[in-house]
Amino acid sequence: MFRTLRLTNLLAARSVATTAGPQASAVAVNQHSAPVDFGTEPERPHMVTAIPGPRSLELKKNLADVQIGFTIEWVGNYEKSFGNYVHDVDGNVMLDTFMQISSLPLGYNHPALHAVARSEEYIAASLNRPALQYFPSHNWMQLLQDSLISIAPRGMKHVNTFMCGACSNEHQIRSVAICAAFMRRQGRLPSEEELTSTIRNQAPGSPKVAILSFLNGFHGRTLGCLSATRSKATHKVDLPAFDWPACNFPRYKYPFEENVEYNRKQDEMSHDEVDRTMKEYKAKGNPVVGVLVEPIQGEGGDAHASAEFFRGLQRIAKENGAAFMLDEVQTGMGITGHWWAHEMWNLPTPPDTMSFSKRAMAAGFYASDDYQVKHDERIRSTWSGEPQKAFLLRETIKVIRQQNLLQSVRDTGAYLVNGLKQLKGKYPSLVQNPRGAGLYVAFDTKDKDVKEKIYKSCADHGLILGSCGVTTIRFRPALIYQKKHVDVTLDILDTVLSKQN
Amino acid sequence: MFRTLRLTNLLAARSVATTAGPQASAVAVNQHSAPVDFGTEPERPHMVTAIPGPRSLELKKNLADVQIGFTIEWVGNYEKSFGNYVHDVDGNVMLDTFMQISSLPLGYNHPALHAVARSEEYIAASLNRPALQYFPSHNWMQLLQDSLISIAPRGMKHVNTFMCGACSNEHQIRSVAICAAFMRRQGRLPSEEELTSTIRNQAPGSPKVAILSFLNGFHGRTLGCLSATRSKATHKVDLPAFDWPACNFPRYKYPFEENVEYNRKQDEMSHDEVDRTMKEYKAKGNPVVGVLVEPIQGEGGDAHASAEFFRGLQRIAKENGAAFMLDEVQTGMGITGHWWAHEMWNLPTPPDTMSFSKRAMAAGFYASDDYQVKHDERIRSTWSGEPQKAFLLRETIKVIRQQNLLQSVRDTGAYLVNGLKQLKGKYPSLVQNPRGAGLYVAFDTKDKDVKEKIYKSCADHGLILGSCGVTTIRFRPALIYQKKHVDVTLDILDTVLSKQN
Repeated sequence: MFRTLRLTNLLAARSVATTAGPQASAVAVNQHSAPVDFGTEPERPHMVTAIPGPRSLELKKNLADVQIGFTIEWVGNYEKSFGNYVHDVDGNVMLDTFMQISSLPLGYNHPALHAVARSEEYIAASLNRPALQYFPSHNWMQLLQDSLISIAPRGMKHVNTFMCGACSNEHQIRSVAICAAFMRRQGRLPSEEELTSTIRNQAPGSPKVAILSFLNGFHGRTLGCLSATRSKATHKVDLPAFDWPACNFPRYKYPFEENVEYNRKQDEMSHDEVDRTMKEYKAKGNPVVGVLVEPIQGEGGDAHASAEFFRGLQRIAKENGAAFMLDEVQTGMGITGHWWAHEMWNLPTPPDTMSFSKRAMAAGFYASDDYQVKHDERIRSTWSGEPQKAFLLRETIKVIRQQNLLQSVRDTGAYLVNGLKQLKGKYPSLVQNPRGAGLYVAFDTKDKDVKEKIYKSCADHGLILGSCGVTTIRFRPALIYQKKHVDVTLDILDTVLSKQN
Repeated sequence: MFRTLRLTNLLAARSVATTAGPQASAVAVNQHSAPVDFGTEPERPHMVTAIPGPRSLELKKNLADVQIGFTIEWVGNYEKSFGNYVHDVDGNVMLDTFMQISSLPLGYNHPALHAVARSEEYIAASLNRPALQYFPSHNWMQLLQDSLISIAPRGMKHVNTFMCGACSNEHQIRSVAICAAFMRRQGRLPSEEELTSTIRNQAPGSPKVAILSFLNGFHGRTLGCLSATRSKATHKVDLPAFDWPACNFPRYKYPFEENVEYNRKQDEMSHDEVDRTMKEYKAKGNPVVGVLVEPIQGEGGDAHASAEFFRGLQRIAKENGAAFMLDEVQTGMGITGHWWAHEMWNLPTPPDTMSFSKRAMAAGFYASDDYQVKHDERIRSTWSGEPQKAFLLRETIKVIRQQNLLQSVRDTGAYLVNGLKQLKGKYPSLVQNPRGAGLYVAFDTKDKDVKEKIYKSCADHGLILGSCGVTTIRFRPALIYQKKHVDVTLDILDTVLSKQN
């Protein structure tokens, strides 16, 4: 296939350039940069220890004295890692289908990004980080045009940049609450009484208004986001929370095609609950100003819902006077085979706000004209994003387009799900509900213990997976993950599952 | 003075190296890097337009269609800027005493940081951003040792890294609330009832607990931080807030030496109010688990308080069972002539938590052993900071030590305050209450209108100032701001003030 060949060639070309010097210019390497000794992607993982190895364990122990370190799984050597393969400090070389919790779009050390990192404009951006809402850099507008604006969802002309997924969701929520207040007041600015009372955190200046989210949803851990997050009690317990409602997200049976009627019923039950809850909260003086939802629940166990569900949800939100807010922190930037997952739904009107981060490297939220704050310095932070990240994003978008990676993601994702279905045939209790959109792929297994065994044993065999929900294994590979990588993935999974059986 | 000469020589050496090539090695430039055409610092600003100039205005207009852009003051060219002088897109060269809202410790394009940006380890960190709490990089522990741990406040052995000041404060607050819950339960893990109820944002799992902060304090705009922020109504209005208390921060008369008794009375009134408020909130079932305070209120108008005030505040917090939490986002990293402002207070025991960001480039919070979360994955984010920023911080610390910049900051700050006192003698209604700690310096003026005129007119004369509170002009220069820069600053101020008089 031509696309696949081109991508393979790009990776191969770089390894030639490493030895052949001048050929580096083929990947537009900055004239000042030196060749980087990447090597090339190996054919398969190469393991010398179990995971974590002794050196990882030692570093983990040292680090745990200083930082919260008990969740460290292994320690990487990111200078040696390349493409889909990650090196750890014990000399293990592993196929990484999780990519730093879904946040490296082009894998490790992509040559095109190396060229960016050596450019004068990138270095200047690194060292002179501006306060973008006061003193932006001369190239910021053009950089936005060439990056975030060039992939803006239809109908969303505003984009506000921030630091990470959580703070993007915080500001998305703030933007919705502020615009809702302007609508309630029919455009009037806050009154003197509102301005005075808010300094004391009291009504009417600090009103009771709610964000509706979904059980098992994850939106971050800062206290605003956390009031909408409902995935794990350990994220939330002991911390104060707003009186915000959460409804059930549809829980589908798979395969989707064989359970259409059951799943439609799930949609309806969820819709009814959302509508009822919004009316209840309005009646008790705590109106829902926004409905916040992930296109696919990630942390909560890779729960998918239909385009019909989301179109209905948008309608119900609007009928009840609330914004339709998407959290595309994990689903965005190509992993579903579309720039944004919600592009699969054919919504009649755009979402009101949509956050992004992770694989976009840059973070922030898009807004429709109704939900972009236009008065005073209401939505803001010192830095408000980082041009450096936008340089990386600009180049990443270029690579995705040149290599036609969105198509590759759709094809490769279908190939992976198909392979998982075959494993399901072979190990029906161990591989359940294989499902995906593009490379946003998952399957469930028997129980939590078995999940952890599969996860751990795959790592020992050189395959890094993700884990979510209670019994779910998730894949979040780079967009350059191809069929040959799927073959290695399925081969290792088969080996591991055969031992569990 | 030897120190001053050394710093000047470093900057001068770089400009020689630009033309003389090989001499670049004098500042440890990476062997792969090319010479950068910085030029050198000018003697004075060079203005060709008023601020903002026509090109800045045009870019602001374009940007405002896309982002919140009405607060843009000018558009910078950070590739051309150097040292204390910033270039804008209209060809103006200005002395910058605000440094991107206090967040560039070594000014623009410091040669030592350029060398870091060209190093392979920095580039690898840029392009392969790890999820630090799961898969840290091989050099992360050493990097922490050489950066954040090497300047850790006495008694604070834990440091947790995050993205910016707001998210560091969010996690600082979360850490305190979580540790307080463990103390309340005498170490017991959360009960099943707590785990179940928290998913619904309900007690007992989501308890009522409060953070006490101060009127005019600023701690960020995410919803948790915002419940503690009390500086401007426009930051807070229309947004839901927790029922958290705020007390009066001492409002001193200056000069401090001539108002000792009055100011001591201010301390006492604030202490009494804090103690009374904590008891009230405990009685109403919303106990204060932490007292959060800035060492010097920045956004709120550069309000200083005495070491005695903070020692007393720490005592009252502890007596009432709450953590003593510092927000050193703006006061930290050398600007007061100490690594951390609270080092000036001679506290009997360390603070419980302390956040940092801005000038540290890296962000996060330090914690005492009592307030470091040690159970489960409670304090966390996908990225949890960024090694790249720690590389810049490590080199910055090295430069600060080599150049003895903390001493320079104290000397230069005293020289600046002394100069402002002379301007006060000349323009008593326009320059009031000159005050400072190191280079964290400010003065008040007659009223808001006059403040804005001085601010704007100084910019037109090539002097970038900061502004805060209602009538306050603040200085937040880089740590390489020296007496010769003070002379230029005072000279321009004198010119501007003479026209206002």
